[in-house]
Amino acid sequence: MRATYMYGAGDVRVIDVPDPVIQQPTDAVVRVVRSCVCGSDLHPYHNLPDTPGGKTMGHEFIGVVEDVGRDVSTLRVGDFVIAPFAWSDGTCDFCQEDLQTSCRHGGFWNANGVDGGQAEAVRVPLADGTLVKVPAGVDDALLPSLLTLSDVYGTGYHAALKGGVSARTTVTVIGDGAVGLLAVLAARQFGAERIVLMGRHKDRTDLGVEFGATDVVAERGTAGIEKVRELTGGDGTHIVLEAVGHMPAYEQALGVVRAGGVISRVGVPQYDEASVGFGTLFGPNVTLTGGPAPARAYIERLLPGVLDGSVQPGKVFDRTVGFDDIPAGYAAMDDRTALKVLIRP
Amino acid sequence: MRATYMYGAGDVRVIDVPDPVIQQPTDAVVRVVRSCVCGSDLHPYHNLPDTPGGKTMGHEFIGVVEDVGRDVSTLRVGDFVIAPFAWSDGTCDFCQEDLQTSCRHGGFWNANGVDGGQAEAVRVPLADGTLVKVPAGVDDALLPSLLTLSDVYGTGYHAALKGGVSARTTVTVIGDGAVGLLAVLAARQFGAERIVLMGRHKDRTDLGVEFGATDVVAERGTAGIEKVRELTGGDGTHIVLEAVGHMPAYEQALGVVRAGGVISRVGVPQYDEASVGFGTLFGPNVTLTGGPAPARAYIERLLPGVLDGSVQPGKVFDRTVGFDDIPAGYAAMDDRTALKVLIRP
Repeated sequence: MRATYMYGAGDVRVIDVPDPVIQQPTDAVVRVVRSCVCGSDLHPYHNLPDTPGGKTMGHEFIGVVEDVGRDVSTLRVGDFVIAPFAWSDGTCDFCQEDLQTSCRHGGFWNANGVDGGQAEAVRVPLADGTLVKVPAGVDDALLPSLLTLSDVYGTGYHAALKGGVSARTTVTVIGDGAVGLLAVLAARQFGAERIVLMGRHKDRTDLGVEFGATDVVAERGTAGIEKVRELTGGDGTHIVLEAVGHMPAYEQALGVVRAGGVISRVGVPQYDEASVGFGTLFGPNVTLTGGPAPARAYIERLLPGVLDGSVQPGKVFDRTVGFDDIPAGYAAMDDRTALKVLIRP
Repeated sequence: MRATYMYGAGDVRVIDVPDPVIQQPTDAVVRVVRSCVCGSDLHPYHNLPDTPGGKTMGHEFIGVVEDVGRDVSTLRVGDFVIAPFAWSDGTCDFCQEDLQTSCRHGGFWNANGVDGGQAEAVRVPLADGTLVKVPAGVDDALLPSLLTLSDVYGTGYHAALKGGVSARTTVTVIGDGAVGLLAVLAARQFGAERIVLMGRHKDRTDLGVEFGATDVVAERGTAGIEKVRELTGGDGTHIVLEAVGHMPAYEQALGVVRAGGVISRVGVPQYDEASVGFGTLFGPNVTLTGGPAPARAYIERLLPGVLDGSVQPGKVFDRTVGFDDIPAGYAAMDDRTALKVLIRP
């Protein structure tokens, strides 16, 4: 089968590899129907050291179960499933607490012998815990939105949930990538009536407005902070959803959060140390929260709205590629000519 | 009158200064009945640069109203009052949200012309918003506990409240100073059944056990982290209340917090940057919260238990000094021969 590997910064290749097979009795093999490129894939695209053996890529996919191990009890060959971006047993205390990203027996794709989702098929460990079955006969038009449940919709939702967004809170969303836009959508779902979207790509922020943003701030840095403060009587917003992961986004979050407020990060931080002292977080009693979304926890919750078409997170996909064009898809996301690239095998 | 000034690291003096007078119509002047030295006073005691003019000290006091400005409407001469460690108008949106430390017109003692509480009398700005009246005829034996409502009891309570302590959470408290011990007390009040206290002064941790700590860990650094993990099946506790403010305490908090948990800081951070990246806060979805306690918000809430004697936070005072011995009181807290020093004019 074909699968996507990265060999170093900017070096993405689609190669032929053996088809995945069941290795553990709890595995399933899923034939991929749709997968995609994630904004977080751009981090290694910028800084992966030369990796002669290559690194498998992709952590978002939906598909059809092709084989199951003998201990898999809830899935059958032919089931249509959504895979969240972390695999998990579904039974440990962390999974029961809806923190599947910290599952005691789980892990992430593209690590420890578990290959990625930008491939024609994937071996899924702990299939009963990991995969969520979707009713049969789903319209093809819903596939992009279903695919967002693997990661970006759940991640935007996680940002809003951890941030404590409600009808009583004002919100700033930093970042107009897919996660930022879906954080806008989720903030709206949680009832926020004032949602400031910080982003400078008009086609993207237009979609953000469609998803519920009430204000768009294209400025960045100090000018961006001033603009948000201007919009909020000088105070900033109760909640800031940070969907980028670079230090300037963190600094922007500090600049626009209201005293007593919350910064909820879902952009994977590309830094380790940051300002948390009296002048930034502590003095104004600002809370810093967030992390990798337990997307698995949110799939059942968010699925009905996707299936009935009332929520259309799949609008974040603005380009579709076949396997040959996956490297071009990465390049398009990197140069911001594509918002999010869908892969159709 | 006599008042306490600091002129540099380790240089505390009690000097004669003019009695305070009403400056604004919203001021009151309070004759101090009890004040005290705070663990946070030790930070300037270690690192205050030479300050020829001196810096007033003290932010915790109880006393009797001696004079009021013409716009003060809720207080009369002779009222017995508690002053929280920040003054505030009580009417702005932040005050209404119980975040008086961010009051739009308020501030802290020992800054901007507002002198400190380690004095025989204090001018209190925005007296109606700041001071809380206590019923007349309080037994002298209750004075130490009433004084803790100025800061340390409210601060320990704030740590537990912001941390989200409940009967379903395990808790680690870092620091066996007055705030750490009262964070133990507060965690117990919020229902926590497992409270690990990290501290190495047995007389203090004994009081912590009296306040509700179920385990005491005297080890620090890696050994301390291992010990807490050992006590909690390897996982750490849901909530960590950090009542020190130095970087090793932050690192200890990172080491003992369970995935998905909360680090609630009330020790004034003596650092600006700290680790918040994937390997520390983000990956395990750990929340960092806390800040200066809006002690004003908690006085009414915590006062009944103090007045009826069912809660005795005043036990943190283990030494009483007169004005002549205030410098010796600082030295005793600094060398850890005193836990918390009460000042009786």
